[in-house]
Amino acid sequence: MNNIDRLFDAVATKGHVCVGLDTSVEYIPPKGAGIASDAEAVLAFNKALVDSTLDVVACYKVQIAYYEEMGLAGLSVYSQTLRYIREKGGLVIADVKRGDIADTALRYAKGHFAGDFEADFVTLSPYMGMDSIEPWLEVAETKGKGAFVLMRTSNKGMRDFEYLELSDNDGRRKRLYHAVGDKLAGLATTNSGVNGYGMFGAVVGCTERDEAAEIRKKYSNLFFLIPGYGAQGGAAGDAALLLREGNGGVVNASRSILKAWTAEMKKSGTDESTATIGFAAEAARRAVVEMRDAILEAVKK
Amino acid sequence: MNNIDRLFDAVATKGHVCVGLDTSVEYIPPKGAGIASDAEAVLAFNKALVDSTLDVVACYKVQIAYYEEMGLAGLSVYSQTLRYIREKGGLVIADVKRGDIADTALRYAKGHFAGDFEADFVTLSPYMGMDSIEPWLEVAETKGKGAFVLMRTSNKGMRDFEYLELSDNDGRRKRLYHAVGDKLAGLATTNSGVNGYGMFGAVVGCTERDEAAEIRKKYSNLFFLIPGYGAQGGAAGDAALLLREGNGGVVNASRSILKAWTAEMKKSGTDESTATIGFAAEAARRAVVEMRDAILEAVKK
Repeated sequence: MNNIDRLFDAVATKGHVCVGLDTSVEYIPPKGAGIASDAEAVLAFNKALVDSTLDVVACYKVQIAYYEEMGLAGLSVYSQTLRYIREKGGLVIADVKRGDIADTALRYAKGHFAGDFEADFVTLSPYMGMDSIEPWLEVAETKGKGAFVLMRTSNKGMRDFEYLELSDNDGRRKRLYHAVGDKLAGLATTNSGVNGYGMFGAVVGCTERDEAAEIRKKYSNLFFLIPGYGAQGGAAGDAALLLREGNGGVVNASRSILKAWTAEMKKSGTDESTATIGFAAEAARRAVVEMRDAILEAVKK
Repeated sequence: MNNIDRLFDAVATKGHVCVGLDTSVEYIPPKGAGIASDAEAVLAFNKALVDSTLDVVACYKVQIAYYEEMGLAGLSVYSQTLRYIREKGGLVIADVKRGDIADTALRYAKGHFAGDFEADFVTLSPYMGMDSIEPWLEVAETKGKGAFVLMRTSNKGMRDFEYLELSDNDGRRKRLYHAVGDKLAGLATTNSGVNGYGMFGAVVGCTERDEAAEIRKKYSNLFFLIPGYGAQGGAAGDAALLLREGNGGVVNASRSILKAWTAEMKKSGTDESTATIGFAAEAARRAVVEMRDAILEAVKK
């Protein structure tokens, strides 16, 4: 049993939604902002959202950039958010996209798999090669952690490098992201859990419907962290194509959940200045449940 | 005049050395460690090294992983180290290798070009594409900052992906790192400074002597941050091949400078337990001067 198995179980019981706590103070209702400081407001908002969604999400993903932006106070809130989720029994992915070699990677691993910034999973960037990934594995094994490595993302710029075609292609189209996927699939064979997935999965966006089936089939031992849902254009059906037998991935949504309260208020014509953090948390739960059910429905098809 | 011009001027007057403050508490002399806490010891060590080397280095590079490892206390020391260097008039590169898209990249840029973590330059990872690089440019322009993007690093794992050959090769050998370099060179044409270098340079290691001349010639408008010196195998002559008319790059060394005191004591047969931070700082200066002079000598050849 590895840490991906814990995530697998969470998906089986609570659905595929990963809520991205990319919390900017601008997303917080007027009645919640300015509590004592921006950082305090973000923490209060995060806690309320976790309380209202814990039983309907597979996990949370916390994007550290939004906290680094606020400096030391922001990183304190980042630390407290991770701790809060873990104390409540939730799983949390630290979206840090770190990528550095050897000794440096080990330092990062100690920083994000233990101490103030302890998370259950991290995201990693593969540019520098497998010696920027493998050192994390040692610490992950000891501490029962996992990771998701960037493979084929969901942004426009992915075509700049991830899509570049390689000359060593065995006669078929092979892109950079395939080379990354091949390395990860190889690594996964050495540490598969009880559900057949390696300790380190991959980030694969659901924006490119045409490639989804091929990627899912080819990398059957990789659990996917799936961005690109909603605002970025991916639909439940697209995400479902990246799942395997109804599991094997979590689907991230951030802004559509965090800002569900504004969407609801616009729809009902309510004055947004009257919104509270409590209302935002309830709206977030409704948005999560709707997304969860849409994906479960798509999986059945 | 862009921020690379400031670095160019520093190289012209003080030489090419970039001291990497990848400071682990294990590198600190016994008489300096344990001052109040590991974090405090690291800060005292960093300040002493900066004081003793400021007039003989082009810049400093602070590897954030070593500080993230120590949690919030470590990031406070990271912040204070950056501030100390900048207050003394030094230039500092935040070695953060961040890489994320659009809005997230903007958050990171605000976090590392202003506030608690304000640096003069950052390092960036290009995997996700140019929309993970370009948002930094907006903030860099406003605040007079710069960046170095990973291109061809100096680690063994660089061969996993950076070296992959592309099928779209115009009849010559073209690797992933060339594709990254081409994009960066294109970007640099839009924001060249008075010395002909773009605001965003590239990380190019000095471990591969055979490729150095080609890379330097092809990417003449990119200023290089050059790792791989010393411990990783690169010599002064190798680094010099990546320079242009005696400038155009800074050469990083970390451990060989930070641990110069142990090397000196081993050589003289002195008991290492008697070492102080003051001695370590003096030894670091001697190591920097030796490295600076070796590179200046190699440039003349």
